[in-house]
Amino acid sequence: MTFVRTDARGADALRPVRLTRHYTKHAEGSVLVEFGHTKVLCNASVEERVPPHKRGSGEGWVTAEYGMLPRATHTRSDREAAKGKQSGRTQEIQRLIGRSMRCVFDLKLLGERTIQLDCDVLQADGGTRTAAITGAYVAAHDAVSWLLAQGKISQSPLKDAVAAISVGMLKGTPLLDLEYIEDSACDTDMNVVMTGSGGFVELQGTAEGEAFTRAQMDALVGLAEKGIRDLLALQRQALGL
Amino acid sequence: MTFVRTDARGADALRPVRLTRHYTKHAEGSVLVEFGHTKVLCNASVEERVPPHKRGSGEGWVTAEYGMLPRATHTRSDREAAKGKQSGRTQEIQRLIGRSMRCVFDLKLLGERTIQLDCDVLQADGGTRTAAITGAYVAAHDAVSWLLAQGKISQSPLKDAVAAISVGMLKGTPLLDLEYIEDSACDTDMNVVMTGSGGFVELQGTAEGEAFTRAQMDALVGLAEKGIRDLLALQRQALGL
Amino acid sequence: MTFVRTDARGADALRPVRLTRHYTKHAEGSVLVEFGHTKVLCNASVEERVPPHKRGSGEGWVTAEYGMLPRATHTRSDREAAKGKQSGRTQEIQRLIGRSMRCVFDLKLLGERTIQLDCDVLQADGGTRTAAITGAYVAAHDAVSWLLAQGKISQSPLKDAVAAISVGMLKGTPLLDLEYIEDSACDTDMNVVMTGSGGFVELQGTAEGEAFTRAQMDALVGLAEKGIRDLLALQRQALGL
Amino acid sequence: MTFVRTDARGADALRPVRLTRHYTKHAEGSVLVEFGHTKVLCNASVEERVPPHKRGSGEGWVTAEYGMLPRATHTRSDREAAKGKQSGRTQEIQRLIGRSMRCVFDLKLLGERTIQLDCDVLQADGGTRTAAITGAYVAAHDAVSWLLAQGKISQSPLKDAVAAISVGMLKGTPLLDLEYIEDSACDTDMNVVMTGSGGFVELQGTAEGEAFTRAQMDALVGLAEKGIRDLLALQRQALGL
Amino acid sequence: MTFVRTDARGADALRPVRLTRHYTKHAEGSVLVEFGHTKVLCNASVEERVPPHKRGSGEGWVTAEYGMLPRATHTRSDREAAKGKQSGRTQEIQRLIGRSMRCVFDLKLLGERTIQLDCDVLQADGGTRTAAITGAYVAAHDAVSWLLAQGKISQSPLKDAVAAISVGMLKGTPLLDLEYIEDSACDTDMNVVMTGSGGFVELQGTAEGEAFTRAQMDALVGLAEKGIRDLLALQRQALGL
Amino acid sequence: MTFVRTDARGADALRPVRLTRHYTKHAEGSVLVEFGHTKVLCNASVEERVPPHKRGSGEGWVTAEYGMLPRATHTRSDREAAKGKQSGRTQEIQRLIGRSMRCVFDLKLLGERTIQLDCDVLQADGGTRTAAITGAYVAAHDAVSWLLAQGKISQSPLKDAVAAISVGMLKGTPLLDLEYIEDSACDTDMNVVMTGSGGFVELQGTAEGEAFTRAQMDALVGLAEKGIRDLLALQRQALGL
Repeated sequence: MTFVRTDARGADALRPVRLTRHYTKHAEGSVLVEFGHTKVLCNASVEERVPPHKRGSGEGWVTAEYGMLPRATHTRSDREAAKGKQSGRTQEIQRLIGRSMRCVFDLKLLGERTIQLDCDVLQADGGTRTAAITGAYVAAHDAVSWLLAQGKISQSPLKDAVAAISVGMLKGTPLLDLEYIEDSACDTDMNVVMTGSGGFVELQGTAEGEAFTRAQMDALVGLAEKGIRDLLALQRQALGL
Repeated sequence: MTFVRTDARGADALRPVRLTRHYTKHAEGSVLVEFGHTKVLCNASVEERVPPHKRGSGEGWVTAEYGMLPRATHTRSDREAAKGKQSGRTQEIQRLIGRSMRCVFDLKLLGERTIQLDCDVLQADGGTRTAAITGAYVAAHDAVSWLLAQGKISQSPLKDAVAAISVGMLKGTPLLDLEYIEDSACDTDMNVVMTGSGGFVELQGTAEGEAFTRAQMDALVGLAEKGIRDLLALQRQALGL
Repeated sequence: MTFVRTDARGADALRPVRLTRHYTKHAEGSVLVEFGHTKVLCNASVEERVPPHKRGSGEGWVTAEYGMLPRATHTRSDREAAKGKQSGRTQEIQRLIGRSMRCVFDLKLLGERTIQLDCDVLQADGGTRTAAITGAYVAAHDAVSWLLAQGKISQSPLKDAVAAISVGMLKGTPLLDLEYIEDSACDTDMNVVMTGSGGFVELQGTAEGEAFTRAQMDALVGLAEKGIRDLLALQRQALGL
Repeated sequence: MTFVRTDARGADALRPVRLTRHYTKHAEGSVLVEFGHTKVLCNASVEERVPPHKRGSGEGWVTAEYGMLPRATHTRSDREAAKGKQSGRTQEIQRLIGRSMRCVFDLKLLGERTIQLDCDVLQADGGTRTAAITGAYVAAHDAVSWLLAQGKISQSPLKDAVAAISVGMLKGTPLLDLEYIEDSACDTDMNVVMTGSGGFVELQGTAEGEAFTRAQMDALVGLAEKGIRDLLALQRQALGL
Repeated sequence: MTFVRTDARGADALRPVRLTRHYTKHAEGSVLVEFGHTKVLCNASVEERVPPHKRGSGEGWVTAEYGMLPRATHTRSDREAAKGKQSGRTQEIQRLIGRSMRCVFDLKLLGERTIQLDCDVLQADGGTRTAAITGAYVAAHDAVSWLLAQGKISQSPLKDAVAAISVGMLKGTPLLDLEYIEDSACDTDMNVVMTGSGGFVELQGTAEGEAFTRAQMDALVGLAEKGIRDLLALQRQALGL
Repeated sequence: MTFVRTDARGADALRPVRLTRHYTKHAEGSVLVEFGHTKVLCNASVEERVPPHKRGSGEGWVTAEYGMLPRATHTRSDREAAKGKQSGRTQEIQRLIGRSMRCVFDLKLLGERTIQLDCDVLQADGGTRTAAITGAYVAAHDAVSWLLAQGKISQSPLKDAVAAISVGMLKGTPLLDLEYIEDSACDTDMNVVMTGSGGFVELQGTAEGEAFTRAQMDALVGLAEKGIRDLLALQRQALGL
């Protein structure tokens, strides 16, 4: 590879990852997750109600919202609250985070309550959705611990851990954990979400320029598996597990 | 497999596919695509203007919108125009169709004009987004032919064909082209978009229940490749190529 | 008259009318109505609830929504769902269809349920609102038959039939059932809705250019009466009555 | 007729009508129109620009907006500005007022400017749309006089006068100029707009309960013609013509 | 002071103030308040329900909405209902009116019902928010009298009167009750709301150009106290107290 | 005073204030301001364009937007972007911040460009608007330094400094810099904005319960003056001035 990554990072290396718990004081779980310069605040709120489609079901709900501060990015973006609607991109990302979280929850054990995950990007440098999923899991874990400590539930509804990473094909080289300039330049961009036990939860690959081959896809998926294993270890370490 | 599909369809068989060109009379390309009971009207409109980010670039634009008639589904859904906003699902799908189409277009050769693809579901029975992509390509091809016949362009901006199919893992069996009851029941659902030359454009796999393994993913992708080859042949036949 | 209509149609002749029942498979009533090139899909959905102002009244409700596919027209119109609001024209038309349908329903006999009529224009060539009313009646009739067959009601709430036609004054000649180019050119445009027993339900005349005289109004209303008698016969024939 | 109208009004009598010019001081034309207890403030504003579809045409535009103060009615209605959208009824009415006004304007003589009519109901007791049209004409006339006085135009673009009235069939009796309790009780409600030279501009009849017959329609239209003649005289008197 | 006010008004003089009760007939309280050319219609509606946060509390609620007719101003403003949202200015003003009214109400004595105050500006010439508060109090008083007369309450929930005035610093001179041209030109603009017993309810001072000094602030507040004492007397006189 | 403040804070003492510059890396000015547990991220963005009302004027513009992360508060609030509109409170606050900033800018010296201040509350504990103003000034100062360093302007458009504080009357005691529980309990709440040279820019006092007296107002204003002097010193220190 002739392309040199920032800080001479290896093609299969994560950026420095930090998971700071208890970042804000009101939320039941509050985690600042950093993938290099990408910083996402993940707050988990416990609410003693469920959306209409779950009322009376005995089951809970886990959902997510995603936002980006207007100047989280290189140039300022319009504030979605001022425009009066969330972009398609925002909705796609928050639906992805929500599905990823629900995949590791036993909603019966959660009981009729909601864990609402708010993932707000304070600073963006590529990979905000994968950082959000990785951090949201830790925040959700803290919210579950709070529920257990409060005696509201007696058994954890968490069945597994979950983390996510992006991979991409840049000038023929598969790269792990793309930062913004890499993301803009790459031909194929893939986001992968996996559980602690190694199953795939979501896999979204998109050809930005040229279509990608089966062999490229296999290489990218393999790279993502490696990266997610590392993230799962960092989550356990942050949670003291 | 103990599960029997409708009309004894094989696990790797498409539903009957029909591509009816010139379905409505005003659009430059107008195709009704049917995947079994799923019916999507794909209209391609040529507009002699481009969105702001392309103005003065000498390049054109290809984009898509997706809609579902309120009673296309088993039970009636609210009309998005009456609710005053498009759902996250609608926006995800129309962004997917737009990216898939742009992947086979040379926007320079198109010139500063837009091909707008409207994919409206008249009847839904699973696979509306993959039918929409498959049909939209044929409608786009007709719109390109119209541009050539009108002398507005002298060379086709289409670099390749594109088609899409869904695959899913139902009780351990990989199935091609899911109909609605299969889609609701399956553990993993994957939508795959490929070009005529065999490259992947989009690949979106989602675990609905259990996470899926690498081996399952490989089986699903292989099945999709087969299905898309069949769809590409049907597109060529419909276009008389 | 020196003006020659398409296909040498007579000034008092309808365009070829087709009423295709069971056009889609999910709705309790589903009719594609064609007035020449104008094609409107009318789906009737039965919903076991009523709007707030009817709750607890023992009476049902009948209402309608109207939409136009973006490329139903000669040049593409913006999608109302994407714009986030329905135009004044759309609202006027759907209110007209709803009132026309309610006029032939005994809401007490319907019971506390709603018949929702969705009229979506697939292709437009003038007269979409009158085609919609004419087709919606047939779809509503099928939905009522379904309610009777299901044993949900024991007596039909339909008191009468209803149909509608446009008439217009073009260069001094009264014309029945205007197609788009006639509609654009005419001085006065009138939409008339009548019941099977010959009563008027709605009458909306608008001078586009010059104001119209009482004598012109009388001629137009007479022409509309004739056209609606023909439509009522076609409805009975389509329903096998 | 056993039914006795308020203040023993005759079946073919208007309520007391008042047209107060110069009701507010900023607008180029400002008229408070009263049909009995119905009070509508009609302001005409001259704006030196036209909407996009008229730009560069050399022609002007005349348009209207309609609103109702929240407590203009017996019970308070929600404020449309707070709800964030205008109702279908509001849009229907303002489109009707706009069309009625444009019918008596020569848009070429107006020049590339807009006369914007704002009709706001201060107090409602039936007939707000017909009062609005009748008052808006006087306000528009004052705005035209202002344009002439300013030397912005040299010839009046007004081709004719225009006024409107409601009529209805109540228990078999045709009544002129319905007040609210009559409007609520009547079987058929018709709004008629006519020019000073006796032509019809708009005619909208709606059966609220039973459908109406041709004979009833004729009686109602005749009654409206009489009422409008009276209104036209009152307009001329108010304008000192 | 070299600056001469309209009609040679003194720096500490109010414009002619008029409070016309029973201005419209449906509302439980209806007052047209005029501060010179500024005219605001204040309607008080009694509604036998409370917003969610007061349900079951045994307490009532008092709230306000504010609007401006499009041509109340020198040049026409867009209609908020047509734009689909209320401006920040509108929301600020209606929140201010609501807080000011609640300050003089004992919500327990009101009982679980709402007094809704609609303040609509018919003509604007500066000071619309202070006129609105001054008039809304009189309308609220009439609504309370209606509640007492109806026997719905046996004791008045009004604890005090409330009125408001604007003051401003124009070229070094403190002026009472600014009209529009003074408001546009002044350096500091202050709105003051006070009760009958001389307490401050709201005080909002804004430097438009230069920041203002403590001494200027004191002068302005003193001037406002004087003006409000006069307004309170006019309210009592209008109410016959 | 029997009331004891958190950490035994004096009635006239600020909470610990921290101003952290360069908190995020993309914005031209980025300051995290903390007033105790209240944390607001203030980003200043330079944009080389102005809003329509300033185009061609040779002057620039300074404006602000305000937001609150959904779980910045004790219980989660709905996300404004998801609700599709900003609350009245949000709009009031961002208009206040904008006016306060413009008061210390010479818009001519800024040139035709905009400084956009985004104040986003990461954690709320009372005083978010005053913290936002205090921090936004430092961020604006950094943005101005960036403009000078880039050579885009040669002279600073900042005429003065600006800071803000809240004061309140709690059980008869005037308190400086209210935290959330104090703010909820106090009778009178006042926000004061002052310049470095001691002038008032904004003064907003609101009686939450009982009206306040002139003497109380004087005490509160005096307390605010003291607090703002302290904040101005902390700003200078943070900026190294």
